[in-house]
Amino acid sequence: MRAAVFRKGNLVVDTIADPVLAEGQVLAKTICCGICGSDLHAAKFPQQFADVARRSGGRFEMNPERDIVFGHEFCCEIVDYGPGTSKSLKAGTRVVSMPLTVVNKTVHGLAYNPDSPGAFAEYVPLYERMLLPVPNGLSSERAALTEPMAVGWHAVEHARLTKDDIPLVIGCGPVGLAVIAGLKIRGVGPIIAADFSPARRTLALKMGADIVVDPAEYSPYKKWSEVATPPNYDGSRFAALFGDGPKMRPAVLFECVGVPGVIQQMMHGAPQWARIVVVGVCMESDSFEPFFGIARQLNLQFVLGYSPKEFADSLHHIAEGLIDVSPLITGKVGLDGVAGAFSELGNPEKHAKILVEPWR
Amino acid sequence: MRAAVFRKGNLVVDTIADPVLAEGQVLAKTICCGICGSDLHAAKFPQQFADVARRSGGRFEMNPERDIVFGHEFCCEIVDYGPGTSKSLKAGTRVVSMPLTVVNKTVHGLAYNPDSPGAFAEYVPLYERMLLPVPNGLSSERAALTEPMAVGWHAVEHARLTKDDIPLVIGCGPVGLAVIAGLKIRGVGPIIAADFSPARRTLALKMGADIVVDPAEYSPYKKWSEVATPPNYDGSRFAALFGDGPKMRPAVLFECVGVPGVIQQMMHGAPQWARIVVVGVCMESDSFEPFFGIARQLNLQFVLGYSPKEFADSLHHIAEGLIDVSPLITGKVGLDGVAGAFSELGNPEKHAKILVEPWR
Repeated sequence: MRAAVFRKGNLVVDTIADPVLAEGQVLAKTICCGICGSDLHAAKFPQQFADVARRSGGRFEMNPERDIVFGHEFCCEIVDYGPGTSKSLKAGTRVVSMPLTVVNKTVHGLAYNPDSPGAFAEYVPLYERMLLPVPNGLSSERAALTEPMAVGWHAVEHARLTKDDIPLVIGCGPVGLAVIAGLKIRGVGPIIAADFSPARRTLALKMGADIVVDPAEYSPYKKWSEVATPPNYDGSRFAALFGDGPKMRPAVLFECVGVPGVIQQMMHGAPQWARIVVVGVCMESDSFEPFFGIARQLNLQFVLGYSPKEFADSLHHIAEGLIDVSPLITGKVGLDGVAGAFSELGNPEKHAKILVEPWR
Repeated sequence: MRAAVFRKGNLVVDTIADPVLAEGQVLAKTICCGICGSDLHAAKFPQQFADVARRSGGRFEMNPERDIVFGHEFCCEIVDYGPGTSKSLKAGTRVVSMPLTVVNKTVHGLAYNPDSPGAFAEYVPLYERMLLPVPNGLSSERAALTEPMAVGWHAVEHARLTKDDIPLVIGCGPVGLAVIAGLKIRGVGPIIAADFSPARRTLALKMGADIVVDPAEYSPYKKWSEVATPPNYDGSRFAALFGDGPKMRPAVLFECVGVPGVIQQMMHGAPQWARIVVVGVCMESDSFEPFFGIARQLNLQFVLGYSPKEFADSLHHIAEGLIDVSPLITGKVGLDGVAGAFSELGNPEKHAKILVEPWR
C-alpha cells in the first residue's frame, strides 16, 4: 500500500507492506487523518523524541533509524475482518478509534512505532473493540478531529474545575483550541486565551474564548487578575488572615505551548493557589524556580492523551454540535502533499489543522 | 533587650531596642524558640534568600544589609498589654502564635524582616488575636514545636489524601518528620520514608513511619512499588485499557529535602498519576524534564506555611498526645549558643531540633 514514510529525516511517499490482520483486528481504509504538532516535533527532533519517550517509559515507542509512518488522528472505513472479530459493525461503516491497535493482548501505539504504521497510509489495522462508529450526518473530516479534541477534553476533565474558576489558556494552537472547546462545554468562564497570532486568536473566539489577549501587547496574567478581582477586594494579608471580604476567583491556567520556559513563565505570572494544567508537550529539559511555586502554593497537573471514555465523549461533542471543529480545518492534502504540509504548519497565520487524504 | 542578631553574615549576641507595643499587641516573653532549616538557609545564603523572596512576592521580607533576628517557632508568656487589647488571656499565660504580628492592620512576618525581629530575643510583640493559650500539662518545649508540626500538617491537608494512598516521604529532617506525624494522624499507610541518615530514619519510625529506606542501599521508589503492587497485578496497557483486574494503590510523594535536583529525581521515580507534594523549600533555580511529568500524568502541589486553623490543629495534636514531639528535641542553648547551634544542625546524626532559651 502507499504511505507517507518518514525515512532518515525526510518525508517520502513509498509503497510499504499491506497490513496482516491479527486476532481481533479489522482492516480499515483511511479516509482522512490530521497532522498533529507531535508529528512535527518527531520529524524535527526524531532522536530527542525517541530518547525522552524511552527514558520516561511513556506510551510512545519510536526508532528513527527505521521507516516510520505518522498519523494518529484518523477517520476510517471498515473494509475487512481478521480472525476472532465479532463483525458487529458492517463493512463500509465509518469509524474512529483511539490510535492503538492490539496484537496478542499487547497494545501498540499507531504511528511513531516503526512496527505499527499510522494512518498517513491507505490502510491501518485497528482493534475491533476500540472502534466507535461515526454517526450519520457527521462528516469524516469533522470526525477525524475527535482525537485532538479529546486531548483538550482530557485536560479539562483533570483540571478539577469549580464553577467559580476563571480559566486562562496560554497558546491557541490545536491543543489550546481543544481546551477552550472543552471549557466552553463545561460552562466555566469567562475564558481568557492568549496567543501572539491574530489568526489563532480569531479561532480561539470561534471555539468559545470570551476574551483574547496578544501577549506582545498586554500581560495575560494581568488581564486574568483584572477579570478575577471583585469590587472592594482587599488583597492585604490582614484581610486574608482575618477578613471575610470578597475573594479573588480561583485560577486555572492551561499550558498549551510545550516549549522550554513557558512553565516557569506561567509560575511567575500565576496568582496564589493557581492550578496550572500542563497540556503542551515539551520534550526538552527545562528550568524553573521552585520557590515561585512554593510562595504561591501552585499546583501543576501534567496530562497526556485521554481515556476511552473521554475519547468517546469527544466524538459525541462533535457529533452533537457542542463543538464546531470546521474552522480548525484549514487544508487538505494527499500523501504527496504531506511533506509540504509539515512545512506549512509552521505558519500559525495560515493553518491550524491540515488533513491528509491518502486516496486523494 | 538581649537578642541573637544576624549581622553581616555572623550571629552575635547584642542588645537591641525593646519592642514598642502597637494597637492590639501584647508583649510576650520568649520561653523557647526552635531553630528552623529556613533560618540556616537564610544565614548561609542571605542575599539569595532575600532576592527570591522579593521576586516571588512571598510572605518573607529580608534585607541582609541590616540586623536581623531570626526565630519563628516559639512558645512565649504574656507579660504586658498594648493599647486596644482585650486582655482575655491573663498575664503569665503561656501562648503560641503564628509567627506574625500586626501594626495598623498590616501583617508583618516575625524574623527575617529587619523591622520585625523574631524570637531569638528576650521579648516579641505578638498580635493578641493570633494567640493560642498553651494547655496545662503541655510543656513549653513541646508547645514550641507547634509551628514546625503545622508545616507538615498543612502539607498533608493539601495532599488530597484518599484512604488507599500509600505515602512516600523523601527526606526525614524536621519537615519530613512533621509530614510523617500528620500522615499517621490521618491514618493512611503504610508510610514509607527515606533518608540517608540512620538517626533520621530512627526518628521517622518514632514519628509513625512503617517502613524506612536508606536510598544509598535501595531505591525508595522501588520499595514503594513493591508495597503498592497487589497480587496478580497485570501492569500491561491492555489491562489498563480493557481490564478490571487489581489496581496499583495510589501514590502520594512528599518532597521534604528542598535542594535542586530532588523534584526531577522524584518525577523520574514516581509511578503513573502520582501526586508529589513539594514541602521542602528550594530557593535556587532548578531543572527538570517536563516530559516525565507528562508521560506519567504527575501532579505537583507546592505548599508553604499553614492556615490559622492548621496551626491550631497542630497545637491540639501535640497537646492531646497525637504527636509525641519530644524525640525531635535534641538540644537546648542560650542566646550565646545560637551561632554554635547553627553549625551543629548541619549534622543529621546528632540533631533534629535545637531550642533557643533566651533567658537560659
